[in-house]
Amino acid sequence: MEGNSVFLIDQELLPFQFRILECRNHRETVGAIRNMNVRGAGAIGAAAGYAMAQAFHEQGGNSGYIQAAKSLIESARPTAQNLFYAVQRVFDAGTVGALAAANAIAKEDADACREIGKIGSELIRDGCRLATHCNAGWLAFVDHGSALSPVYAAHASGKKVFVFVDETRPRGQGARLTAWELKNEGIPHAIIPDNAFAFYAAAGKIDLVIVGADRVAANGDTANKIGTLEKAIIAREYGIPFYVAAPVSTFDKQTATGEGIVIEERGEEEVTMQSGPDETGTIRRIRVASPDSPVFNPAFDITPARLITAYITEKGITETIDPGWF
Amino acid sequence: MEGNSVFLIDQELLPFQFRILECRNHRETVGAIRNMNVRGAGAIGAAAGYAMAQAFHEQGGNSGYIQAAKSLIESARPTAQNLFYAVQRVFDAGTVGALAAANAIAKEDADACREIGKIGSELIRDGCRLATHCNAGWLAFVDHGSALSPVYAAHASGKKVFVFVDETRPRGQGARLTAWELKNEGIPHAIIPDNAFAFYAAAGKIDLVIVGADRVAANGDTANKIGTLEKAIIAREYGIPFYVAAPVSTFDKQTATGEGIVIEERGEEEVTMQSGPDETGTIRRIRVASPDSPVFNPAFDITPARLITAYITEKGITETIDPGWF
Repeated sequence: MEGNSVFLIDQELLPFQFRILECRNHRETVGAIRNMNVRGAGAIGAAAGYAMAQAFHEQGGNSGYIQAAKSLIESARPTAQNLFYAVQRVFDAGTVGALAAANAIAKEDADACREIGKIGSELIRDGCRLATHCNAGWLAFVDHGSALSPVYAAHASGKKVFVFVDETRPRGQGARLTAWELKNEGIPHAIIPDNAFAFYAAAGKIDLVIVGADRVAANGDTANKIGTLEKAIIAREYGIPFYVAAPVSTFDKQTATGEGIVIEERGEEEVTMQSGPDETGTIRRIRVASPDSPVFNPAFDITPARLITAYITEKGITETIDPGWF
Repeated sequence: MEGNSVFLIDQELLPFQFRILECRNHRETVGAIRNMNVRGAGAIGAAAGYAMAQAFHEQGGNSGYIQAAKSLIESARPTAQNLFYAVQRVFDAGTVGALAAANAIAKEDADACREIGKIGSELIRDGCRLATHCNAGWLAFVDHGSALSPVYAAHASGKKVFVFVDETRPRGQGARLTAWELKNEGIPHAIIPDNAFAFYAAAGKIDLVIVGADRVAANGDTANKIGTLEKAIIAREYGIPFYVAAPVSTFDKQTATGEGIVIEERGEEEVTMQSGPDETGTIRRIRVASPDSPVFNPAFDITPARLITAYITEKGITETIDPGWF
């Protein structure tokens, strides 16, 4: 945040264009969250905290304005726990403390993710063939990432690691963002269709799965990008350890089980339309599905705690959620 | 087949354009199979049979030419059993009988699929919410289809049926072809991302799964479009019956188990590039994945017999393969 503007990497354009998006007021920041110019648990949280700080900056003393802004920010994405955590914390900090609170959330996010990497990398042996889903790397957080942070730490310590990157339809965060991150980090990887995960699991080619989380309920049930549940079921079928990596700020003690987590339904066009550069580099938007068919597009699913080997957090690796964390 | 030309619906252009592709000699027919202008177990079989008949027509007496043509046709797609079945049968029929044999294969395919529909529709109760994968409808066969034939028969008999159509990345046969078929048949359905299958299965919204097959080994292990194995594992997890529908010509008694089935690896661009109409209707080809990342693209996977509830064939519904069929 500089002045009253929040500056974000525009993830909608990646990996084809790298652009910094300026959000000049809290409404623009909310728009960037809703449209997924910024996405990923920690990045949404940090952006939401700054949006709340923008609102205070815009109208310091007007409690009606602040309340309306809080509601607007909270309406941007319903599933992401970090959003609600950050908005509440900055709201509670008040006019004087808002910016410092937003800055603290961003710094703590990066610190927690670094620690998740250090702790999680102990699970990754030399030569490990790992799979992930969606993007829970440094793009999805302020830095380092959750699911990918252990991969980066293992790679930095000299271990060989190979990552299966599934496309993550419909928005392709795996094929577009995780593949781009791993390429930039020089980590061997391959993009696979979402449908091919079981093929490689059945062939004994996946040693470990680490995914991120958008919200973890008190009993450990985990909301994450649609398709996570599929990978968890398949990992269990073939005896592959399945870990959820997330900072404590993603854990929601107010929600008892996954049944209490609201699942966002997103628009049909995420499924039926695709954007990307043609052979001349011009970004085109094309239809990839038969017209006039209804589409269901749930953005997240709930992986029950029984399918999760353990949680990798900045406080350690644990099979059960420690109430003392909150 | 008319004269020496084979006429095919060009499935590469569907659902955006409907065009009949003329293949003027066996090499062009092989090209259409390889490039998937014609795809689907029965349609590949019929096309391959006609390609063999074309070769006889082109060079009736030259056994070197016929042998070379047979090898070329057999090299078009390695996994599809119907291709090998049809080529061998037309080859064995010789110069005089080739066209009649190819015609018989096409007719028998349509007849078998009609019978699969009649028999399989008994599994579909009124109000059934069914899921399928890829396209095993009338486009994939000479008529009726395998997995969708029971749906069409149930619908025709007045039963209500709803179909979850997964996209079937990377080529999108679900979103492009199955959705288009069902729309044309007036059958309620919705397109879902491949990743959302477990979401609906876990929610108790899927009553039955029927898929097609490219090859069924003697022990019942089934090669079908990549992602079939994922659906089978998830169906088992939630107690959903999982059926494979296929004519007897898809059953391969020469191959003992799924381990003996060759899995075709296809090109990276099927995953990284997508084609479709832009807002003006012009077909564009765009990149949808990060450049310079390796891609793995297996076209099929093997679903072990233990995950398959039963097989729907023109000879009946059976839990085990009857050697008397062959």
